[in-house]
Amino acid sequence: MKIGIIGLGLIGGSFALAAKKHVSPSRLFGNDKNLENEKRALELGLIDEILKKSDFFQMDVILLAIPVDAALDLIDDLLDQINDNTLLIDVGSTKSMICEKVAFHPKRNQFLATHPIAGTEFSGPTAAFDSLFIGKSQILCETNKTRPDLLEWAVSWFKNINMRLREMDPKEHDKHIAYVSHLSHISSFMLGKTVMEKEKDEKTIFDMAGSGFESTVRLAKSSPDMWTPIFKQNQENILEVLDQYISNLQEFKRLIEQKNYEAIYDKMLKTNAIKEILTGIN
Amino acid sequence: MKIGIIGLGLIGGSFALAAKKHVSPSRLFGNDKNLENEKRALELGLIDEILKKSDFFQMDVILLAIPVDAALDLIDDLLDQINDNTLLIDVGSTKSMICEKVAFHPKRNQFLATHPIAGTEFSGPTAAFDSLFIGKSQILCETNKTRPDLLEWAVSWFKNINMRLREMDPKEHDKHIAYVSHLSHISSFMLGKTVMEKEKDEKTIFDMAGSGFESTVRLAKSSPDMWTPIFKQNQENILEVLDQYISNLQEFKRLIEQKNYEAIYDKMLKTNAIKEILTGIN
Repeated sequence: MKIGIIGLGLIGGSFALAAKKHVSPSRLFGNDKNLENEKRALELGLIDEILKKSDFFQMDVILLAIPVDAALDLIDDLLDQINDNTLLIDVGSTKSMICEKVAFHPKRNQFLATHPIAGTEFSGPTAAFDSLFIGKSQILCETNKTRPDLLEWAVSWFKNINMRLREMDPKEHDKHIAYVSHLSHISSFMLGKTVMEKEKDEKTIFDMAGSGFESTVRLAKSSPDMWTPIFKQNQENILEVLDQYISNLQEFKRLIEQKNYEAIYDKMLKTNAIKEILTGIN
Repeated sequence: MKIGIIGLGLIGGSFALAAKKHVSPSRLFGNDKNLENEKRALELGLIDEILKKSDFFQMDVILLAIPVDAALDLIDDLLDQINDNTLLIDVGSTKSMICEKVAFHPKRNQFLATHPIAGTEFSGPTAAFDSLFIGKSQILCETNKTRPDLLEWAVSWFKNINMRLREMDPKEHDKHIAYVSHLSHISSFMLGKTVMEKEKDEKTIFDMAGSGFESTVRLAKSSPDMWTPIFKQNQENILEVLDQYISNLQEFKRLIEQKNYEAIYDKMLKTNAIKEILTGIN
């Protein structure tokens, strides 16, 4: 079995390692727009050799792990070039546009749209590790449009990695992920920006970062190359939830201005319920 | 040496453990408004016995680790009751008001205002652990107003715990901590609130929380009992930085509306500099 990985960053690289561990491919191919990343991925043993365009046809599985705008540009061409039994899996953070893009492609049934809910704030092949996906959610979209034998192979691989599979409509996915993930990133980026603007002394930021800032600003280390196209593709959902977030902050600000500490206490107490939600008991 | 701890939560409890490890007090006393906490602290061995009001006079050191409004209410009475060689240390998250409150007390020179920059989102005595303060910053205010021998004892204790000491004016402290810490908490609380409002399906929050939300919302698990009085005492600084944060979010929203992806990319790239700041190289 030959597996090709397009995009050797944190996600692509970690899937390469997870493939080596759980699928034992005879040969693992990979490429990256960034030639330094390709070189590092070879050195780190993430891949066995560089995936060339002329290799696409001989791959059994190709995993597409590049920024969502680049994936959209590449997907048609890629489907054209694979053989009639190749499975093409995409792992981008938005799902509507890519599903729409391939909807009428003759090889639509060789495509599987997924979103592994896993990551760190680090990027590139050196950030990859084989346990990244263990116990993490893997969202699958439009599985009824993927050929059953190819779907079965993918599902079995993800289950071997110990991912928690969940089916979701692409539009629903994009809405939910805007709420739960994309907003967190904007919140964190703007927090980092605000603190750097107000607090000119970097030593003071460092000295006081342990008081909550460090974890809250973690996502502001994320790659703009990855995130700009996500905000582009999920504009509508993001604007909706960002609007709500700003309203909530304005309301909290008003309560502080009005010294309405009872209401402030109450809002925080109610939000504490997130504790139980995150333990997954419900 | 007899040490008394008032407030047996995460901070008080962890200082109790750190005292046992580094100071070897002959006896460790403690109390908490919450009788369950007192009982648990005894069971967990954080303290040897309950600290009663009548014991204050015989303490060598008293550490005040209660919400900042309660500390403000208690401090004068506490200074009145200690003996002439007792050191009283406060560890609250705001420093201006408490320093003003004690400014003209006859025992002002037995008081040391500190803020250990350490914590987790958990509270109560069960959350305490002896290594909480290792390597963390300890802010000291108005050290010139504390009797040198008492200050020396405190500094030596904090150094034994391996804390990084830093002197700061109380007003400066409150400004910096609003920027670096208090804003993070509001950002996180309102993020949690927004996501819970928009995303009614708790299972979906749980399934997707790994995509950044989990760390960004961590502070929204914090105790309203602790945080309401902090927002009250640091109102002015918090309003100033919260205003800036809301402006930055509004500007980011405008850029998404205008599809100005170049500016969005640029803002994120610049904010990535937080990476280097948090490594403390500067």
